Amino acid sequence: MPSLSIRVDLGPDASIGPGKVRLLELIAETGSISAAARAMGMSYRRGWLLIDDLKTVFNGPLVETTAGGAKGGGARLTAKGEQVLAGFRALERQAASATARELHLIVALIEDAPR
Amino acid sequence: MPSLSIRVDLGPDASIGPGKVRLLELIAETGSISAAARAMGMSYRRGWLLIDDLKTVFNGPLVETTAGGAKGGGARLTAKGEQVLAGFRALERQAASATARELHLIVALIEDAPR
Repeated sequence: MPSLSIRVDLGPDASIGPGKVRLLELIAETGSISAAARAMGMSYRRGWLLIDDLKTVFNGPLVETTAGGAKGGGARLTAKGEQVLAGFRALERQAASATARELHLIVALIEDAPR
Repeated sequence: MPSLSIRVDLGPDASIGPGKVRLLELIAETGSISAAARAMGMSYRRGWLLIDDLKTVFNGPLVETTAGGAKGGGARLTAKGEQVLAGFRALERQAASATARELHLIVALIEDAPR
């Protein structure tokens, strides 16, 4: 099914797109950076670097780690992390619904094959 | 200035995004695949492969080459190529204007830095 992949460019070397957003979402779901990274087929280090990059881009942490407790350490989104995740998903939904006609026109060009 | 980069996913291994669209645009402007590729810092072969990929995705050529004549050989967009280029740019414009509010909210999260 045709769909859009959107990256938001916020400055030189500062962006957020489907990969970083999915990582945030998986951290919220799993409570763990390593579990989230593993679910995306990336190393813990790669996941950590993406989270560190987001911290720089947004001038503050989107993820916080929690040490100890019955379940051992874990990770969760900060309030800003929740806002970035929700804001990006809202932008994606709005872009998809607003461009349905334009997307349909592009898809129609595919089906216009020579016979 | 914050902006969106959009890729349209049309199927497994079938997509069109800013790179391929810019290549089409430069071919239309320069009349040459090699000049267009060079302007993007890519090899002729890389440019040709992207154009070949688009031909597969859209079930027909988006670029046609013209041999001979006073200016030697060249390249130009087919009618379908013009439609794909215009259609993608229209989708980008529509997405950008429709998501101005959502983009502003994401940018506001950057400026919300700890002091």
